[in-house]
Amino acid sequence: MKKKTISILGSTGSIGTQALDIIENNPDVYSAKVLSCSRRISELKEQIDKFNPEMVVVEREEDALALAKEYPHLQVEYGEKGLITAAEIDCDMVLNSLMGMRGMIPTYHGLKAGNDIAFANKETLVAGGEVIMKTVAETGAKLLPVDSEHSAIFQCLQGNPEKALRKIILTASGGPFRGYTLDQLENVTLEQALKHPKWTMGSKITIDSATLMNKGLEVIEAKWLFDVDIDQIQVVVHPQSIVHSAVEYHDGSVIAQMGKPDMRVPIAYAFTYPDRLENNYESLDFFTEAANLTFEKPDMEVFKNLKMAFEASRMGGSYPVTLNGSNEMLVQLFLEGKIRFIDIQNTIEKVLDQHQPKYNMELEGIVEADKAARQAALDLL
Amino acid sequence: MKKKTISILGSTGSIGTQALDIIENNPDVYSAKVLSCSRRISELKEQIDKFNPEMVVVEREEDALALAKEYPHLQVEYGEKGLITAAEIDCDMVLNSLMGMRGMIPTYHGLKAGNDIAFANKETLVAGGEVIMKTVAETGAKLLPVDSEHSAIFQCLQGNPEKALRKIILTASGGPFRGYTLDQLENVTLEQALKHPKWTMGSKITIDSATLMNKGLEVIEAKWLFDVDIDQIQVVVHPQSIVHSAVEYHDGSVIAQMGKPDMRVPIAYAFTYPDRLENNYESLDFFTEAANLTFEKPDMEVFKNLKMAFEASRMGGSYPVTLNGSNEMLVQLFLEGKIRFIDIQNTIEKVLDQHQPKYNMELEGIVEADKAARQAALDLL
Repeated sequence: MKKKTISILGSTGSIGTQALDIIENNPDVYSAKVLSCSRRISELKEQIDKFNPEMVVVEREEDALALAKEYPHLQVEYGEKGLITAAEIDCDMVLNSLMGMRGMIPTYHGLKAGNDIAFANKETLVAGGEVIMKTVAETGAKLLPVDSEHSAIFQCLQGNPEKALRKIILTASGGPFRGYTLDQLENVTLEQALKHPKWTMGSKITIDSATLMNKGLEVIEAKWLFDVDIDQIQVVVHPQSIVHSAVEYHDGSVIAQMGKPDMRVPIAYAFTYPDRLENNYESLDFFTEAANLTFEKPDMEVFKNLKMAFEASRMGGSYPVTLNGSNEMLVQLFLEGKIRFIDIQNTIEKVLDQHQPKYNMELEGIVEADKAARQAALDLL
Repeated sequence: MKKKTISILGSTGSIGTQALDIIENNPDVYSAKVLSCSRRISELKEQIDKFNPEMVVVEREEDALALAKEYPHLQVEYGEKGLITAAEIDCDMVLNSLMGMRGMIPTYHGLKAGNDIAFANKETLVAGGEVIMKTVAETGAKLLPVDSEHSAIFQCLQGNPEKALRKIILTASGGPFRGYTLDQLENVTLEQALKHPKWTMGSKITIDSATLMNKGLEVIEAKWLFDVDIDQIQVVVHPQSIVHSAVEYHDGSVIAQMGKPDMRVPIAYAFTYPDRLENNYESLDFFTEAANLTFEKPDMEVFKNLKMAFEASRMGGSYPVTLNGSNEMLVQLFLEGKIRFIDIQNTIEKVLDQHQPKYNMELEGIVEADKAARQAALDLL
C-alpha cells in the first residue's frame, strides 16, 4: 500500500504534535511531507530529524534562511506565501491546524489545488464559510473536520441520508466557570481561565473554552460544514466531555459519538476516512469514567459570547468575521494580562452593536473585515 | 412511489400493533398484506376492517373457518403452515413479531423465499442462529433487527467498515429487581415482575427482562446477527433506557444510538432502511429525561440467566436452544403462578448442567432439542 503523504500546517502545536504521534506510530501508512511552525524552531528541527519532510514552512525569513543553510536538501519557505505553497503541494491530505484567521487563506488555496483538507482551524469556516464551502462544491475536494465535536457529528452522519438530519446536538464541557454568575465572572483570573477541566489545548482555544466563544465558533463552523440552519444546532453542556456530540434524525433517533478526550482519534479519523485506523489506546470504560453522564442548558445570559455567536450567524455577512476578529484581539490582550476576562465578551458586544455589516464578501473583504474588527475592539475597550 | 407491502406475523401483539400504527400514519408508503394472530380474533377483525389485508393467519382451524365465512374475499390460513405461507408470500417485507420458538420456522421459510425479514423474534437467532445466518448468506435476503438494542447496534454500524468493529455495548435497563440480592429475589411476586420500569411489552418478554434472560437472549442474538465473538459483547446496565446500545470501533471511537423508549422508531427503521421515515414524535430532551445517564455492571451472580446465556453461547450447539426452551417453559409456569421467580433461573441451571449437547443441527434437530429442554425443565423442577 502506498503511504499517504500529509502536509501539516502548524506541526508544533497541540494538534500538529498529536498528528505526528499518529504518523510516527503508523510509519507504513503515513508520512509527513511538509512540517511548519511559527517560531518554535528548535521543536521543528527535532521534527525534521525524526520525520524527514520534503519541505518546511516557518513564519520569519531569517529563520527560513538559517534552516536552509542547516538542511541543504530541504525546501524551506516562510510567511503566508509559504503556507499557501504547503497547502497547494502535491500530497494526499493537508492538515490545517493553524491558529486563528491566518488559517483561512491556506485552506482556500489548498482546496483550489484539489487537496483534501483536514482542518482544526475553525476560522476557516467561521469567517470564510460562504467562500470556502463554495470552493468545496466547485473543486470536489474534501473538507474533513478534526475538531472533536465536528468529527463526532461527521461520524454520526455516516451511512444516513442527508435529508434525514433534523438537529445537531453540539456538546460543551462548560469550561472552568460553568455555573458562575456574571458577578463571579468579573473576578476570574488568567490562571483560572487557563485550567480547562477536560482537554489540554493551546492557550487561545483554552480561553475561548472558558468564555464559551469556542462553542460559539463551533456552532458557526457546524452550520457551514453540515449545511444546516443555525437554529437546527443545539448546544448542550456536558461536563464529562464523553459524548463529543450527536445528531438527531427526523425519525427521532439520536446517534452520538463518545470516547475519551483524545484528539488523536478525530485526527486519525480525518486521515483515514471513511476507514478507521486501529490503535491500542485504552477503551472508554462505562463503569468508571462514563458511569455518570450529565447534560444541562448553557447559560447564555452569563456567557454572552455563545448568544452573540448565534446572533452573528443569523445576521450573516461580516458579522461572524467581526465576532471572531474582535475575539482574537481581545483574547490576546487577556493572555497578555492587559484586560479582564469579562472585558472580552463586553467589548465584543460593543463591537457588534456598532458594526456596519457587509455582505457577499470575497477573501479580501473578509481579511479587511477581520482587521477592522480587531481595531474596533481596541477602540471600544 | 409504489407502496411497500408488509406481511405481519403477530399483528395483535405489542410490536404488531405498533407496526400497524406506522402503516396507518403512512398510508402512501406502506400497506399490510398479511395480518395474523393466535386467538385475539376480535382484535384481528378490527385490523382487517381497517387495513384490508389480502390474507390472514390464525392459530386454530375453527377460527379460520369462521373468518373465511365472514370475509369471503379474504384468504384465511391457520397454524404453522399458515405462518409459513404468510412468510413466503410475495411482499416487500415480512415482520416477524411472533413470540417464542415457533417464530423461527417462518423466518427460515421467508428467507428461503427471498423475502427480507424484519424480526422481533429473538428465538429465530438464539435457537436457529447457525441455520438462519447460513440461509441469509445463501439467499441474500436481509434480516433486519426490530429489537431496540439490535436496531441501535445496526444503526451504529452504518457507514463503517465491518472489520473496524471491536466491541458491542448492549445496554440493559436492569429490570425491576436491579440491585437485589439473591435472597431478595426469593420473595418477589408475579405482580412485581410484570412491572417493567421503562418499556411496555408482552408478559413473556417482561418476565425475561426481570430475570435478565431477555438480555442473555439478546447477547446471543447479537453474536449471530453482527458476526462477533460472544466475548466482544459487553452488557451495561443503564436504568434510564435512553442509550439503546452502542458499538466501539478499533480506533476507540464509540457510536451510540439514543432515543425515547418507543418501539415505533426501530420498527420504522427496519421498514425504511437504509432511509429513515420522518415522524412528529417528540424529540429526546437532554435537559430533562436524558439529563442524567448512568451505567453500571450487571450482577451476574444474582441474575444467573445472563451468565448462563454467555456460557451457553460459548458452548454452542444445542446449549442455547436448551437455555431458551427451558426458559420458555418456566416463564409460562411462573406466569401461571405455578412456580416462584427464582425457580426460573435455578431450574435452567439444572437443565444446562445435565444437558447432553448436540452439534451441527438442522431445523428439525433444533425443534427436537427445544422440546427436550421444555421436558427437562418440567422434570427438574
